[in-house]
Amino acid sequence: MISVEEALKIVLANQHETTVSEVPLLSSVGRILAENIYADRDFPPFNRVAMDGLAFCFDEVDLQKIAIENIQFAGEAQKTLQDISKGIEVMTGAILPLGCDTVLRYEDFNIQQDGKVKFACISIPNEEIKKGQNVHLQGSDRKAEEVLLQKGIKISPAEIAVMATVGKSIVKVQNTPKIALISTGDELVDIEETPLAYQIRTSNAYMLAAALQQIGVAATTFHLIDEEKVLYQKLKEIIESYDILLLSGGVSAGKKDFVPAILTDLGLEKLFHKVAQKPGKPMWFGKTKAGKIIFALPGNPVSTFLCFCKYVLPTLNSEIKHEEVILDKEIIFKPDLTYFVPVKTYFEAGKMMAKPFLGSGSADFANLTDCDGFVELPAEKQVFKAGEIFGFVRFR
Amino acid sequence: MISVEEALKIVLANQHETTVSEVPLLSSVGRILAENIYADRDFPPFNRVAMDGLAFCFDEVDLQKIAIENIQFAGEAQKTLQDISKGIEVMTGAILPLGCDTVLRYEDFNIQQDGKVKFACISIPNEEIKKGQNVHLQGSDRKAEEVLLQKGIKISPAEIAVMATVGKSIVKVQNTPKIALISTGDELVDIEETPLAYQIRTSNAYMLAAALQQIGVAATTFHLIDEEKVLYQKLKEIIESYDILLLSGGVSAGKKDFVPAILTDLGLEKLFHKVAQKPGKPMWFGKTKAGKIIFALPGNPVSTFLCFCKYVLPTLNSEIKHEEVILDKEIIFKPDLTYFVPVKTYFEAGKMMAKPFLGSGSADFANLTDCDGFVELPAEKQVFKAGEIFGFVRFR
Repeated sequence: MISVEEALKIVLANQHETTVSEVPLLSSVGRILAENIYADRDFPPFNRVAMDGLAFCFDEVDLQKIAIENIQFAGEAQKTLQDISKGIEVMTGAILPLGCDTVLRYEDFNIQQDGKVKFACISIPNEEIKKGQNVHLQGSDRKAEEVLLQKGIKISPAEIAVMATVGKSIVKVQNTPKIALISTGDELVDIEETPLAYQIRTSNAYMLAAALQQIGVAATTFHLIDEEKVLYQKLKEIIESYDILLLSGGVSAGKKDFVPAILTDLGLEKLFHKVAQKPGKPMWFGKTKAGKIIFALPGNPVSTFLCFCKYVLPTLNSEIKHEEVILDKEIIFKPDLTYFVPVKTYFEAGKMMAKPFLGSGSADFANLTDCDGFVELPAEKQVFKAGEIFGFVRFR
Repeated sequence: MISVEEALKIVLANQHETTVSEVPLLSSVGRILAENIYADRDFPPFNRVAMDGLAFCFDEVDLQKIAIENIQFAGEAQKTLQDISKGIEVMTGAILPLGCDTVLRYEDFNIQQDGKVKFACISIPNEEIKKGQNVHLQGSDRKAEEVLLQKGIKISPAEIAVMATVGKSIVKVQNTPKIALISTGDELVDIEETPLAYQIRTSNAYMLAAALQQIGVAATTFHLIDEEKVLYQKLKEIIESYDILLLSGGVSAGKKDFVPAILTDLGLEKLFHKVAQKPGKPMWFGKTKAGKIIFALPGNPVSTFLCFCKYVLPTLNSEIKHEEVILDKEIIFKPDLTYFVPVKTYFEAGKMMAKPFLGSGSADFANLTDCDGFVELPAEKQVFKAGEIFGFVRFR
């Protein structure tokens, strides 16, 4: 039996290698970027007017009253200041007219007409006007050819905006793996059936399919009965057609827990079986010679979900977000196992507190609907006091 | 000009009323539940074996050595203990045999054969065995007919598991609104074009479309030129066909900022224009008589995104998650405005710290790729010290 830390390390060191595709920009959100994105020109690409108002040359004008000689709209070619003692009206997003270096907001002056000439009569003290104000200087955010986005990041709306700006209408992303979700357990019937007294409806495959769908990964679901020959034959077929298999059930000490032995018979390399954790102790992880990855997760729904969030998601998301919470109530847990307890987080005086929902163990998944993650209580301790800080595995 | 708190209150009080649809279970993830979900039977529906091992009647057996008379698999009809001094091997997920009340794990006994009879020879002290252990009692998690999920919640994988278990193959959800994303600004060209020196490529519509896509809401994008007649005519048409309009640009003090006047001309009720915030001060919000909602957001990308995350997302998500962060560096900001600063959060001794990225203001969206949200610095203060606690608007 290995520790949670070792298990995660092994999982991360044995990931499915994905290929790369080119997709339209908007299809890339949520995916892993497979190329560096460079600035095609400076950010901003020109000295950009940042406020609607009046542009002028700070050192050359009378800061009380400035004659207006022209107007520069956004989207127009750059105009030139003809008389350096005058100004040009400018709109946000416009290129700053040649000869100007400073912009005063409309809020800070009134326009008066004096014969044919319009004047800006400034209503704020001189010392409140700074040379260069309200001008977003060319290249001040990023320089042309700078790397804006690094290969390997997860693409969110902010990255979409950056790629739009540099004209990336087609983006290279990692392909998502083909995933098979396989539940086992003879007590399970499909959700459309009415279970007999000793049966329950299947829920793990739906839960994992939903979680994968949320990160844009499609999965095919299978249900296999607990019969050695059937399991062997079906798993052999499924492994051929998928990149990653997520099994739930059949990995523990039961007389029909055939999964680990069959995976070995199928020639898979076992990378670990059993992790010093509760729930999810019987978890099995391995791979084929061709690099296909198999997670065989315990079948109790809370165990399945914890193992999925802790081990499977980080390999698909390409990121592990480290979060910490403060336990709001003492928990005592004696076994030498890392204990993952469903919690509901809330903020109190700037601290993210976690309220534990101990419930009735790893089959009590109704509990999860009140929670937003698991607190991770380390194996080395037995008493976890209110106010102590622990790791957090978020699932919502 | 109203405060951020008032603006949010008005937005939340004037939401688009959505209709209800029935969708297949897996299509409901990320959507808003439009019916209560009840337990069809007890959770668990029978006294459920929680560990592979031996079931027996605690008060009737010799806790050293127990004869085994039968085996009960998961998915089999309930068996009955014939001899109350004996036990039945049981598998996780099975119904507990009639006459038994306690389960001992395989790890805690060895099986020995004595002639034709198999015995469990128990390897742990009597006092470590508790009556009723490893049995997940019928109805201990939830009772039949109890409300499991309340109408109005957002559906995540945990809720999918619960609905699968009660056989909800078809689920009532709120329909997502039809959204039009409309950018304005004559300086903008499409992402496939090469901009001239004074032009930039459009990015807001892509950023917002990506953000909507992540929550499962489809949007149609439009770009309109800054010309009064065109704006009036096009907006009139678009309002007819969509539930919510998100405009970006054209709402400030510029000479071509026609949007607020045109929206009024179109007969919309203005609910507010200008919010005491930076960025995003010129934001306009209103509705039509038919209850269609219009957000006219400022066009600078950081302003657009902040307004979207702070005001638009909560109306689509049906939830506002209150989060707090601790500023890690002093910020001084004098104007009487709520100041939203892009930050990168990290954990330090159980506290969620926020590192500000001041950048060069509301056009510096390259900045956002380093950040995961905005810290919300209230208008009443001017000095925001390192170590102080403020609200957090997460965008990643």
